[in-house]
Amino acid sequence: SFREIFLELHPYDQAQFYEKVGPDIRKTIYQFLSPQEMALIFEAIELEDEEYEQFLKEMDTVYGAEMLSYMYTDDAVDVLNELDDEHRESYLEIMDSETVEEINELLAYEEYTAGAIMTKEYVSILENSTVRSAMTVLRNEAPNAETIYYVFVVDENHCLTGVISLRDLIISDEDTLIKDIMNERVVFVKVSDDQEDIAQIMKDYNFLAIPVVNESNKLIGIITVDDIIDVIDEEASDDYSKLAGVTDIDDIEASPFKAAKKRLPWLIMLLFLGMITATLMGQFEETLDKVALLALFIPLISGTSGNSGTQALAVAVRGIATGEIDEKSKMKMLLREVMTGLITGIVCGLIVVGIIFIWKHTLLVGLLVGAAIGCSILVATIAGSFIPLLIHKLGVDPAVASGPFITTLNDVTSILIYLGLATTFLGQLS
Amino acid sequence: SFREIFLELHPYDQAQFYEKVGPDIRKTIYQFLSPQEMALIFEAIELEDEEYEQFLKEMDTVYGAEMLSYMYTDDAVDVLNELDDEHRESYLEIMDSETVEEINELLAYEEYTAGAIMTKEYVSILENSTVRSAMTVLRNEAPNAETIYYVFVVDENHCLTGVISLRDLIISDEDTLIKDIMNERVVFVKVSDDQEDIAQIMKDYNFLAIPVVNESNKLIGIITVDDIIDVIDEEASDDYSKLAGVTDIDDIEASPFKAAKKRLPWLIMLLFLGMITATLMGQFEETLDKVALLALFIPLISGTSGNSGTQALAVAVRGIATGEIDEKSKMKMLLREVMTGLITGIVCGLIVVGIIFIWKHTLLVGLLVGAAIGCSILVATIAGSFIPLLIHKLGVDPAVASGPFITTLNDVTSILIYLGLATTFLGQLS
Ligand SMILES: [Mg+2]
Ligand SMILES: [Mg+2]
Ligand SMILES: [Mg+2]
Ligand SMILES: [Mg+2]
Ligand SMILES: [Mg+2]
Ligand SMILES: [Mg+2]
Ligand SMILES: [Mg+2]
Ligand SMILES: [Mg+2]
Ligand SMILES: [Mg+2]
Ligand SMILES: [Mg+2]
Ligand SMILES: [Mg+2]
Ligand SMILES: [Mg+2]
Ligand SMILES: [Mg+2]
Repeated sequence: SFREIFLELHPYDQAQFYEKVGPDIRKTIYQFLSPQEMALIFEAIELEDEEYEQFLKEMDTVYGAEMLSYMYTDDAVDVLNELDDEHRESYLEIMDSETVEEINELLAYEEYTAGAIMTKEYVSILENSTVRSAMTVLRNEAPNAETIYYVFVVDENHCLTGVISLRDLIISDEDTLIKDIMNERVVFVKVSDDQEDIAQIMKDYNFLAIPVVNESNKLIGIITVDDIIDVIDEEASDDYSKLAGVTDIDDIEASPFKAAKKRLPWLIMLLFLGMITATLMGQFEETLDKVALLALFIPLISGTSGNSGTQALAVAVRGIATGEIDEKSKMKMLLREVMTGLITGIVCGLIVVGIIFIWKHTLLVGLLVGAAIGCSILVATIAGSFIPLLIHKLGVDPAVASGPFITTLNDVTSILIYLGLATTFLGQLS
Repeated sequence: SFREIFLELHPYDQAQFYEKVGPDIRKTIYQFLSPQEMALIFEAIELEDEEYEQFLKEMDTVYGAEMLSYMYTDDAVDVLNELDDEHRESYLEIMDSETVEEINELLAYEEYTAGAIMTKEYVSILENSTVRSAMTVLRNEAPNAETIYYVFVVDENHCLTGVISLRDLIISDEDTLIKDIMNERVVFVKVSDDQEDIAQIMKDYNFLAIPVVNESNKLIGIITVDDIIDVIDEEASDDYSKLAGVTDIDDIEASPFKAAKKRLPWLIMLLFLGMITATLMGQFEETLDKVALLALFIPLISGTSGNSGTQALAVAVRGIATGEIDEKSKMKMLLREVMTGLITGIVCGLIVVGIIFIWKHTLLVGLLVGAAIGCSILVATIAGSFIPLLIHKLGVDPAVASGPFITTLNDVTSILIYLGLATTFLGQLS
């Protein structure tokens, strides 16, 4: 039958099918599948925000509410977060109070923190249990827990005191006490910790899950590795978008109007910034008027300065994101960038002097353009590393100092440097 | 004792300590720890290439060889890959033949493929085993296998036929046959598959490990989720670097000379490309000479065109990397970008006409600059999406069409458009 064949598929494949068919076939699926079976699909699916809303509206409210309560709390919360208050309430009203309580707890945590990505379906036992009773708990929880490969050990107050893996459990004697074999140096995160820091910990320690505790050290949830992979992907995509100056780059399916709406804010903001360049250049109109040759090298100079600024920016933003750049190494990094800017500036400057001399047979213009490029590279490199550090210091994600912003800023400084130098040596030039 | 306290630490923390202390203390560590204990540290460590070499040279060769054979094959191969042939041979010579065979197999696979990141330490059983015997195998393999949470099921020819999780094993009756409860629709990858595609599969299906088969469907290894996290991080960092025009951005510790060496190739290449802009502008020297006001808007136009090109590029490169853009959706995407370019071009163009009219009280120059910006945005958006698609079609990673490259290319076209338009309407302008 359709039902049997469909259920043999992996939930991700079921979700792919479900997502692609029309509302009519989806309605047939709701008839064939139990809310519990549908829950697996909703856990595996990755949808655009509006699609969650749309798909839920196709279902009977009771069916939807039941499906949501069968889902892992973190995934249910992800879905409920996409709904407006009223729609969300219509489900919470008819769900059992225990689930609603858990969901409301997770809904309350701030986005991008441990609380927002953790789940409630973990296995915990008391320190004084035996391996045998731990295995019994695991077997009972297996159908519900998000992972049974780690058992978290707690005291009577539900404070986290240790962890033991199923790997260790199955090779231990059944009568052994958990507290004698558990790992007491359990690595945990606080509920308000940033998801990016948690991802770094899970990557470093190769964990499959990490426990989350509240301010009084009580175990309140776990974060699983699959969600951390999504976090890593999301954060990388976020940094990438910001470097490119787009709000987000995920949906290839978006209409041109949607795409334009996402790109225009950046483009328009940069247009106004670019106007500053034009205004500043206006101050040098006289110089440009006298030596029209000067204008030829403006795109070259501003382009090169933009390129070296973006390079420095990328190194700084990623370094801060991965924690490689911290308070201690900050000054060292800045100094390194000053030196790097000097070296790249001198090398590129000399190359330009050479090219222009060969091409235009003029040493003076070459020296001027070369000096401007050298200085611009130095300034751009310093700006590209200093600005993200400054922004980070102010407590803001350094990735907001996006590529186009730094580039436009460096346009301004490089042109100021170039036309400033040109005006100073105008006598020699004309 | 030092030994006991040290061994209580998580291997990652041991590795952090090991990495930070000097050679003297490291030599003490070699005396205190067995090669097997040292192997855990080397599995957890993430070093610069030369450090592996340096640390190994500090050890006795026999100690080092023994440590390497205790490591998971994939991690041992990662270390051995950093050594020169002679140094590598010195270890392989004294290791047992079975381990050497496995290592040589993995060393032979091409970088960035399944073969290069898989490990040999997996648990497999025959279809006709019972749950009881599977659990016995698991208990025996637990100290050595990289994961015991999935058992891979094979036939007499070691061909992959199914998979069963430890979660399912512990809740099944001990006499059940594996073939009756295993998942026959096992998702696997081929040994030559690209690591980025494998990462996408593991992310979608939320696997903790995935089996790798050879051309004749024989199970030859597994890839674990911790290594996939590293792949995702590495690929994201790679795309990010390319968008910024740096070879790689990982080592904050690098000296200014090293940093400059990594950035200069890009900067110099772009310098030469930038010279094309200057040459082309040279063709319009007469126009520039007549209306010096025109030069003021060059950075604005080339900047805006660069920004919109980078936006389109980022969307295309990430879309191709994540598989969202494929053969089918390619044309649709291009068409979408043409429309997006039109919309953003028209909006930005009109804004510029407005600003210049208010600022300079001239409609003609405003119209000219606005038209140039509109056309440049359209062309840049199309180039930004078409070029990565073309490069991908040629079988090359689209990320090589880096941000600065597209930006410089768009500098050229935008200036051609602007000065071309200006020259055409020169009569009206002067
Ligand atoms: Mg639930
Ligand atoms: Mg979630
Ligand atoms: Mg790791
Ligand atoms: Mg989860
Ligand atoms: Mg999940
Ligand atoms: Mg971030
Ligand atoms: Mg081994
Ligand atoms: Mg590896
Ligand atoms: Mg690749
Ligand atoms: Mg996933
Ligand atoms: Mg591995
Ligand atoms: Mg590993
Ligand atoms: Mg890639």
